Formats: sequence, C-alpha cells, structure tokens
Amino acid sequence: MYGAGDVRIENVPDARVIEPTDALVTITRSCICGSDLWPFKTMEPSDTGRVMGHEAIGVVESVGADVRTIKAGDLVVMPFAYSDGSCAFCHEGLQTSCAHGGFFGTVEVAGAQAEAVRVPLADGTLYVLPVGRDDALMPSLLTLSDVMGTGHHAAVAARVGPGKTVAVVGDGAVGLCGVIAARRLGAEQIIMLGRHPDRIALSRDFGATDVVSERGEEAIERVRELTGGLGAHSVLECVGYEQSTLTALSIACPGGGVGRVGVPQDEMIPAAQPTFYNNVTIAGGQAPVRAYIDELLPDVLEGRIKPGRVFDSVTDLDGVPGGYRAMNEREAIKVMIEF
Amino acid sequence: MYGAGDVRIENVPDARVIEPTDALVTITRSCICGSDLWPFKTMEPSDTGRVMGHEAIGVVESVGADVRTIKAGDLVVMPFAYSDGSCAFCHEGLQTSCAHGGFFGTVEVAGAQAEAVRVPLADGTLYVLPVGRDDALMPSLLTLSDVMGTGHHAAVAARVGPGKTVAVVGDGAVGLCGVIAARRLGAEQIIMLGRHPDRIALSRDFGATDVVSERGEEAIERVRELTGGLGAHSVLECVGYEQSTLTALSIACPGGGVGRVGVPQDEMIPAAQPTFYNNVTIAGGQAPVRAYIDELLPDVLEGRIKPGRVFDSVTDLDGVPGGYRAMNEREAIKVMIEF
Repeated sequence: MYGAGDVRIENVPDARVIEPTDALVTITRSCICGSDLWPFKTMEPSDTGRVMGHEAIGVVESVGADVRTIKAGDLVVMPFAYSDGSCAFCHEGLQTSCAHGGFFGTVEVAGAQAEAVRVPLADGTLYVLPVGRDDALMPSLLTLSDVMGTGHHAAVAARVGPGKTVAVVGDGAVGLCGVIAARRLGAEQIIMLGRHPDRIALSRDFGATDVVSERGEEAIERVRELTGGLGAHSVLECVGYEQSTLTALSIACPGGGVGRVGVPQDEMIPAAQPTFYNNVTIAGGQAPVRAYIDELLPDVLEGRIKPGRVFDSVTDLDGVPGGYRAMNEREAIKVMIEF
Repeated sequence: MYGAGDVRIENVPDARVIEPTDALVTITRSCICGSDLWPFKTMEPSDTGRVMGHEAIGVVESVGADVRTIKAGDLVVMPFAYSDGSCAFCHEGLQTSCAHGGFFGTVEVAGAQAEAVRVPLADGTLYVLPVGRDDALMPSLLTLSDVMGTGHHAAVAARVGPGKTVAVVGDGAVGLCGVIAARRLGAEQIIMLGRHPDRIALSRDFGATDVVSERGEEAIERVRELTGGLGAHSVLECVGYEQSTLTALSIACPGGGVGRVGVPQDEMIPAAQPTFYNNVTIAGGQAPVRAYIDELLPDVLEGRIKPGRVFDSVTDLDGVPGGYRAMNEREAIKVMIEF
C-alpha cells in the first residue's frame, strides 16, 4: 500500500530468516482485514509503501537456529501480533503486550498479503495446525489469526456469560464473530446493531436473536425497548468510531460491560455520562488471539462454530487491490486470498 | 449552600415522614465530603439553597406505615444513596442504580448536615448498627456511609487482589480509604500518589508501601520505576480531574484495571492510548456502599480497619461553614459533625 486507495502487487525482495528466532513461512491463505481499510481510507502517500496483511495460514519453509518447537513443513496459523511466549504478559495471555513483540504489516515487519512472510519469535507466535493445507475448514481456521479471536476477546472483555443479554455494535466480520462468541459463551439474547441485509442474515445464522438497524439515539432507544428498558449486560464494540463507541456505552445496562475491539478512530470517551454514573466497565483492546487458539480451535475442528462463513469473497494475490475496493464499498464482508 | 463559598446554618422546616416508606432520622454524626467541595467551588447562586450532606449516622425517630424492618430507636448508618433494596439492580448490589432510588443532599431530598433527615425507602436504605450511639467506633462506622465503601469500590473495580501492585491516585479521604481497602484485599505493594505530609503519613499507617509526590509525566515515570517498568496491576482513581484520570490510566500495566470513584469533573477519557492499546479496563463509578456494609462492618467492629482516622477535625453544626473552608484549603482531610 502506497497511500489511501493505492494498493499494488509488486515483486519485492524475498522474505528470509534474519534473526535466529525467525521462521520463514510460505503463505497458503491470508486475507484483508477491516482494520486494513483505515489506512486504505487515510494513508499519506509513501515512497516506500508498506506490505500489508496480518492474518495468515502457511507452511514453515525454514527456521532460525534458536527456534525449538516449530519446524519446516508445519502448517501454522499466524496471529496478527508476534510474541515471545515467555514474558510476563505472554504468560498472562496478553500476547499483544509482549515485552518483545510487535505486529505484522507494519513498517518494521512485512505483512502476509504476500507469498511469504518472515515471522519473528516463531516459537511464541506460530500455532501448528493438526490438519492438511487444503482442509475444508481452512477459512474458519484462518479466522483464528484475528477476527474470531477478536470477536471472542470483545465478548470476554464485555463479560458475556450464560443467560446474559448481549448487544453487538457493528456487522463487519469482527462483529459477526462477536455474535458467534456471545452464543458460544451462553448468551440468551443477542442483539445485532447493523444494517446490511447479507450481514444481518449471517448474524442470525450465527445466533443473533434481534436486529437493530437504526442508528444513534434511535438505536439506543430500540435496544432499551428490547431489554426491558435496562440496556444490555454486555456490549461488544466492533467498529471504533466515536459514534459507535458512544452508542455502545449508552446501551449497556447499569453495572454492565463494554468490550472494545474496534480500533479507535477518535480520541475520547465520555467520562461522566453514561459511563461513571452507570458504573459501566469499559474493557478490551487489541485481542491476544494467540491466547485464544487453544480454546477456540476444538470448536472449529469439530464444526461447532463456523466463523469462516464471514469470507464471502475469495481471490488470488493479483485480486487483492480489487478486494480492498470491494470491502471498502461494502460489496464484500471479508476477502480471503488463496495462494 | 446558597452558592460557591456560601454555606449558612439556618432554621428550616422540620424534616418529617412524607411517604409511607420514609423514616425520620435524628442525626448523631454526619460529615463533609470531598464531593461537597465541587459545589462549594462552583455552585451558581441560588435563592432557595440546598441542604447539603449525604453521610450520616442517626437514631430513627419514626417510620411510615409501610416500613417493615426499621423501627424507632434503631441506630442506623445512612448510605449516600437511598434505594429500595428490591429492584434488579439492588439485588445485584448496585444500589446506586436503584430503579426507585436517588441521592441525599440534592434538590429533591434534603441532606444530613442537619439535625434530622427524611430517609426515603427506609427499609432498603438504612443499615441498623449493633452498637450504642456514643460508641468509640463511631467515626469509623460513619465512613461506611460513603468514603470507606467508596475506597473499597475503587479497589474492587480495579480488581485488587492478593499479591497485586496497586497505585492510589489522590490522598483525600477516599484515596486513604482506598489504601485501607487495597491492603485489606491482599495487595502486596501500595503506591500512594499524593503530596500532603499529614495525608501521606496516614496512608503509610494504612498500608501504603511507597509514596509518589511528583505529578503528571514525572509521577508516571516514578510509578514505572517502582513497578519494574510495567505499571500497577490496579489503579484507584480517587480525584476525578482530567489530569488525575490520565495519570491513573497511564500508570496501569497492560491488562491492568483502573477503578474510578472520583466524580468526573471533565468530560472525556482518551480512547486509544493508553487505554485500548494496553487493554486497560476502566471500571467504577458511584459506589454502591449499601452493598458493602455487610462485608466491611465486621472489620470495623473488630478493629481490623480504622477508616475513622480520616476525620482529623470535629465540629458541631455551627462549625460547618468553617469546616468547608478548612477542607477546601486542605487544612483538614475530612470534617466530622457531632450533634
């Protein structure tokens, strides 16, 4: 990506092992993230560009001398953050705050919308999958690199549990995975706030019990009506705009929780109303998806959850610029890249 | 209070039972709250004034026809919020969001810096004390009406637990009670951010292990040094200013929690850094102190905690205007009113 709207497919120097803790991974599947659309909308023009992409499955080609648990030939899922797996934060399951970690698709570490990627801290970062590279579950397994884990993080942060009333703000891939997560954690009522018919239909398949297509004050009023006037116990904020955040905070019941996973595009959250005076807890952030694979993988492998359904479009590497446009224009929910 | 700086002692019509769920309580002890200083600094002049005070112990004089559990002669502690004790929020222990509740010292319900007070919803609101009206523990028991319960709420909201590192922002009476609460909940390291020698000395008596008297960036840096570069697991925000809130958010470790109980004086909290990208949880609000009396009272009665030490000044009703001035000028931590 060279700037807003400017995505090019180019030959670049081959990815390779640099540090002894690196792995070189040949990508078999990657995808375009809703968060990739932020730079697609706003990135300043750049001479050097940026190799995008932070969600992938691939085959390990080679590893550095200090890599112990990952070996050539492994089929691996690559979470959007790399992490050493050994620092205090990794031990707590907060790999996105790893003392030595970082993120793919940045200026420092190239991304996975590419044929191959260098994976730093391979032992801590990569997760070996117990299936073949063309397994039919591949789309759902790919979501463990970001969106399914992120939706789950929103649900955990919002303290979803059995019998709870849950509202999901945002009908993008993360919001849809948030519906899966909420249902999986036992929510009784799941209200999807969204307005795109295809996404709403999918959210109902995933477990949404109610849909609110209004916005702003009308949406708040409608959620109150659906929740006996109280608001939702748990709200998943899966967008990141000021308006969506304010809506999320406003539809939480007193004492309720808001789990934020939409990357904040605005700077401020209201401090007094409706947060302080309602004792609403605001939690979440960048999801430590690496920590959640152990918990989510069995449900994917056994078909209990099917987050891969968020991919409603598939392309090859050359189709990536078109994939960005399709997602930006809401023609696609999420685009998978097959190699 | 007729406006900023304008506190008068006047004869007003006697408090009386109005609703059948009311109790009439003769005050034996009340006090001035740090939050009373906000209107003392900023209240617009008013012709009718406002009867201040929301923390009290007193003797029940009479009750309305529908009061069941409270009777004349009971010595009771009056939490700062009244609540029905029966709605969904009261059952969850969030009495400050009671469906039928409200607050003392407001335009609607007169306060307890007075000889007597009408207590709405007496059964749900009042808590009968198992001691005599002149018991030596009276100052500590009085703190159960607000500051001790509020400090405890900050600690609970910030998820203080055994072995945790805790920082307390604010050396007022609530912050000092936050230190008591943090120690009581098993915190290993308790860092007090404050700068008044008398308050700092008291915080050390209460269990603070470290003191940071710097402000702003320097305070943040100092807390980092004291916590191995990571920040505190739990931060208690006991002030309510934008600067103190920003400091609180900035000294929480990744994945940590901030418990807010300082009434917000400014409108916004930063949404991105340091909250979202560090997965810092922001919780708290108006403390449901009614819910905490069951838990805290035994520790007061058996002398394990002595929150009454925050009262470093005692006056009678006529001394209340001087008490406001003393607290506003930081000559007193908290002023108790004896009747």
